[in-house]
This record gives sequence, C-alpha cells and structure tokens, in this order.
Amino acid sequence: MRAVTIEDGRLVLAERPDPEPGRGELLVRVAAAGLNGADLHQLRGGYPAPPGSPADIPGLELAGEVAATGPGVDRFRPGDRVMAVVGGGGQAELAVVHERTAIPVPDGLGWPEAGGFPEAVTTAHDALFTQCGLGLGDRLLVHGAAGGVGTAAVQLGSAAGARVVASVRNRDHHRAVADLGADVVAEPARAFEEGPFDVILELVGAPNFPANLDALATGGRLMVIGVGAGATVELDLRTLMTRRSRVLASNLRSRPLEQKADAARRVEHQALPLLAAGRLRVPVAATFPLADAQEAYDRFVAGGKLGKLVLVT
Amino acid sequence: MRAVTIEDGRLVLAERPDPEPGRGELLVRVAAAGLNGADLHQLRGGYPAPPGSPADIPGLELAGEVAATGPGVDRFRPGDRVMAVVGGGGQAELAVVHERTAIPVPDGLGWPEAGGFPEAVTTAHDALFTQCGLGLGDRLLVHGAAGGVGTAAVQLGSAAGARVVASVRNRDHHRAVADLGADVVAEPARAFEEGPFDVILELVGAPNFPANLDALATGGRLMVIGVGAGATVELDLRTLMTRRSRVLASNLRSRPLEQKADAARRVEHQALPLLAAGRLRVPVAATFPLADAQEAYDRFVAGGKLGKLVLVT
Repeated sequence: MRAVTIEDGRLVLAERPDPEPGRGELLVRVAAAGLNGADLHQLRGGYPAPPGSPADIPGLELAGEVAATGPGVDRFRPGDRVMAVVGGGGQAELAVVHERTAIPVPDGLGWPEAGGFPEAVTTAHDALFTQCGLGLGDRLLVHGAAGGVGTAAVQLGSAAGARVVASVRNRDHHRAVADLGADVVAEPARAFEEGPFDVILELVGAPNFPANLDALATGGRLMVIGVGAGATVELDLRTLMTRRSRVLASNLRSRPLEQKADAARRVEHQALPLLAAGRLRVPVAATFPLADAQEAYDRFVAGGKLGKLVLVT
Repeated sequence: MRAVTIEDGRLVLAERPDPEPGRGELLVRVAAAGLNGADLHQLRGGYPAPPGSPADIPGLELAGEVAATGPGVDRFRPGDRVMAVVGGGGQAELAVVHERTAIPVPDGLGWPEAGGFPEAVTTAHDALFTQCGLGLGDRLLVHGAAGGVGTAAVQLGSAAGARVVASVRNRDHHRAVADLGADVVAEPARAFEEGPFDVILELVGAPNFPANLDALATGGRLMVIGVGAGATVELDLRTLMTRRSRVLASNLRSRPLEQKADAARRVEHQALPLLAAGRLRVPVAATFPLADAQEAYDRFVAGGKLGKLVLVT
C-alpha cells in the first residue's frame, strides 16, 4: 500500500507492506483521513505514536470500507462503511482498526466528512460530556470554535441545550459558526464578556488562561485539549479554591483500547443520530490527495480555516 | 453572650447579643469550637465571612447542646448534642445552626473531639470522595497529614481501602500518623518516591505543586484545599494533557445551604459510623478557653501540631 510517511520532518508518499488484521480487527480501505493538531505535533518530533501504532505514518482518524476482517469480528463485514479514531497510521491506503473502536458511517454521508468526524467529534464529545458533564442550561465557552474540534463542540453543546459562546479570531468565519448553533460568536476578548461560564473548552492554549480562570462560574470546569499556542501558564490556586473550580486536560490518542471503545460507544449513542439526521455537520475546509499531504499540513499550520482538512485516496 | 471577636487584627473576648434561631434553625450552646486555616485567613483580613454569618466572630465548626429551636425544626430538640460546619460565628458561647447542616454527636465522644470534627472531616470527606471519587485500591498522597484535615483524610482514605501515603514534615508525628492508618509516613520529598498517585490532597500549598504534577498517575486528581504556604504556581498544561489529569480546588465556607446540608448527610452516612465505632478519631493537640483565643491562634500559626486546636467554653 501507499502511505504518508514522516522522513526527516517532511511528509512523503511511500510504499509500505499491507497491514494485517488480527483478532477482532478490521482491515479498512481508507477513503478519507482528517488532519489533527496531534499529527503536527508528531511531525515536529514531540509526540511519538503509541505502542502498537505505526511509528512513522500519521493520521488519528479515518473512514473507509471494510476490506477484510480478522478472526472473531462480529460487528462488521467486508463492504461496510466505517470510521474510527486510531493511534496513528490513518493517512494511508489501508489501516487496521479494532472493531470495538469503529463506528458505522451513516448512509448519504460523504467520505471527506466521515474522515473528519471521528477524532473531532469524539474529542469534543468526551471533553464536554464525559469529562465536564455539560448539560441543559450550562453556559459553554469554546475557544478555537472554527476548527475541527471547535465546530463539533459548538454543535454538540447547542444540541444538548447549553448556551454556547464561540470564540473565533478570524471574523470571516463568524457567520458560519453562528449557523452551527452558537448563541454568540465573537473574538476572544469580546467572548469573555459573555461570562461567567460553567464549562470552557480551550483548544488554543496558554494565551487565554488567565482570562479563562476569571471567567469560570462557581463550580466551573476549564477543559484543556489544545495547547498549540503555548502550554505553560501561571495558576492562582486561591482563585480556583474560591470558585470551587477545576482545570482538566486530556487527549484521546494515548488511551487504552477499552477507553477508546467506550468513547466510541458514547459517540454512537449521542452524536451519530445527530449526524444521521443532519443536525451535526462536519465542515470540511479542503481536501487533498495523499500525495499532497505536505501541502495539507502547511495549510493546517497557516491556521484560520473553518472546519477540517482531510486527505482523500 | 460572650464571643471571640476580631478587633484590629487581634482576638478579644467581647459581649454580644444572643443570636436567635429562625425557621429550621437551632440555637446551640457551644461547648467546643475548632480552629481552622480559614479563621486565620479571616483574621488577617483576607477572607471576609459569607453573607448571613457574623462578620467579626470567627469559627467554622462547633459542637454543643441544642438550647432552643426555631419554627419548623424536626431533626433535633433541646438537650440534643450536635456538631456542625458554620459560615462563621462558631467561637462564641451561643451560635445558630440550620438543622439540615447539624450532625448528631455520638454518645461517649468528648466535646473537644466533637468541636474539631465537622470542618476537618467534612472537608476531607468532600475532597476525597465527593470531588475526587477516591475508592478501594486508589493510591492517595496527603500533604500536611498531621493537621486537622490531614489526620481525617488519612483515616478516611484508609477506611475506604486506599493505599495512603502521608507527607508530614515534623518527624515527631510520624509514628502517630502511622497509627491512624497511613501505609507510609514520610517527609514530603521522600513521600513523592512512593508515587504515582491517583489522588493527591494538597493542604500545604504552592511548594509541592511541581512535584505533585509529576507524581500524578494517568487520570489522577490533584485536589487543593490549603494554600497557607503559597498560592501561585506554574502549570504545564501539556503534562496535564499527557496524564489526562485534573487540578481541583474547593472550600466549604462559601457554599450555599443546600450544598453544606448535602455534605453533612454524606458525612453522617460514611464517616459518623466510623467515629461512633472508634475507627475514626479526632486528634486534639490542645484546648484553650475562649478567653485565650489569641494564644490558640498563635499556636496555630506556629504549626507543627498533631491534629486540632479547639476552643472550649
């Protein structure tokens, strides 16, 4: 198979042996695979792939048809359309996925949208609901709301009955993010004026941290998922005590199989029906063929996009 | 009544009008009232009493006999022995307590122990179980384990089946803290070597923070309750993300009635049976008459004690 591979910090298309599905695993003929911040972090040498994942093929999410199944598979059969979060190796023509982490792709959903769904939506869902317990009436602030995880978080928060304030630096995307269900879309400094917030989802990093702490409601949760703009902050523990608030941080990639499978079941239960009904969309900013992976990553670094960048085969 | 009052940053005994119990409230003839870090913080001008509590009478916990009841009281009657967390005003001959926040004092428990129980045990219980979900098999590190909240946390953690590492600077108290059920008692630097920990209870403050972060297990919770030794820390969000861990902080005093009542019910359910059975003790370092409150606070500032300092009437 052909795969995007990391060579001296650059991405090139290379020929690799076809992977083989083991017990409980699917061999997927990848149709689309989204880009994520973690891919970039890995490309720069700071985030090696977890054990069991290809060390030099990036890609944390993919969608495609099941090409073959290993022993003991009972959820899917060859020809089924699936999508999944993987520890790495998604940006290739073939990839192996454990069937417990795979999610069926709804009829009618295009491959680029499916390829950009798993990591973005699972990350947003896990952060908002599993980690922070977001619910009806909560006040949610999403920083970096025009990105892949951000657009998912705005839609999921809105669908769950939260009041959603979306912080988006690029004013060109304000209208589009409002159309996803945000009650208010504003530049960061203006977004804070809408506080206090029960949940703040931080997808940008350190620069917002002091204002985030000040904007937390009593009992509020500050959830850190992205630190592309910086990771070291000063924290006033007394403010945190007075507000009885929390700073949480997480990532999907390093989790063990059972946690990834559990997250996939929750997404199937709560987000997949919204996707199938058209109430949850995956905005795709652009698609690139596998051979143009470097160009796609350069576009990712440039920032300012709306939604996902997706490689297609 | 006579009450400990704050005058120009010093504590003096003064005559004050007797408080009157309102609907659902008990008038308690205080027998004993423990000292807490928050009293000291208030004395220094940094932590004003919450609305509805006496502004200049310290005291966050008390024990005594019910002297009279307001309308609608149905849990207690005059003569009953009760103890409670209050927003302030505990260090006086009389205090008003809502009956939903009061806890019965087990037969045979002395007044000093009862007066030092509510804040210490409720704080430790709320932090370990309600906030951090501590349970069987968890690895717990308690910093400041020889203090009031610390000795409670060691015993509650041990009773719940956690492995308890107690960090105690004063070596004179190591044996006594081990006798409370700690699996390991050590000075802070040595205690960290016992990590990683699922839960760390920080009762001291900033100095331990960097090592605390490093000592958290995957999914670990760092709970900050005391910041007497400093409140400003540097936080590496990427470390927090990699560990999928959390920094929590809380306090009891500023909570609304329903939350204090809920915390009291949980303590009644889980900690009171241990107290009644002698499996949970309240080490009392020293008692002082109300008139010697300033001396008691000076002793509190000096540190290095084992357990509670309690004022008695």
